[in-house]
Amino acid sequence: MPEFMDIHRGMVGITADALKEAHDADLAIQGEEGVVFKQAWADPDSGFVYCLSEANSADAVQRIHERAGHPFDEIHPVPLTV
Amino acid sequence: MPEFMDIHRGMVGITADALKEAHDADLAIQGEEGVVFKQAWADPDSGFVYCLSEANSADAVQRIHERAGHPFDEIHPVPLTV
Repeated sequence: MPEFMDIHRGMVGITADALKEAHDADLAIQGEEGVVFKQAWADPDSGFVYCLSEANSADAVQRIHERAGHPFDEIHPVPLTV
Repeated sequence: MPEFMDIHRGMVGITADALKEAHDADLAIQGEEGVVFKQAWADPDSGFVYCLSEANSADAVQRIHERAGHPFDEIHPVPLTV
């Protein structure tokens, strides 16, 4: 299944607990769109959050993120990895 | 050691071989700045490349990336992960 990396901006001040809560909200409903969220990384100072997932489409990722309350600002498929 | 995620833009058309070559060029000299490059993800269509590393500073990451011929466009520490 294709991998995607998406970016959320504006999450300034995010805490470890808030990141886990957001991630858990994704995990709770990801199966409904066939998405598998794999990992997320956050910078409380800049408010940048990166999120790695497997999905059939970027739209499927966005549908889950939107329903969980945190739509991404940008997403790219990442077919190459090293 | 702190983790960082950096972004390279403009690498449109990057191939799997070119990504590996760029990554290997980083690995070959990363020890000189105490950097550990962990993983990279690339999208040939948009030219976006994400690169995850451990380092003492963003500047150390940039010094290696610059010497390897591919300075990042943006970088964020990612102290939180899930």
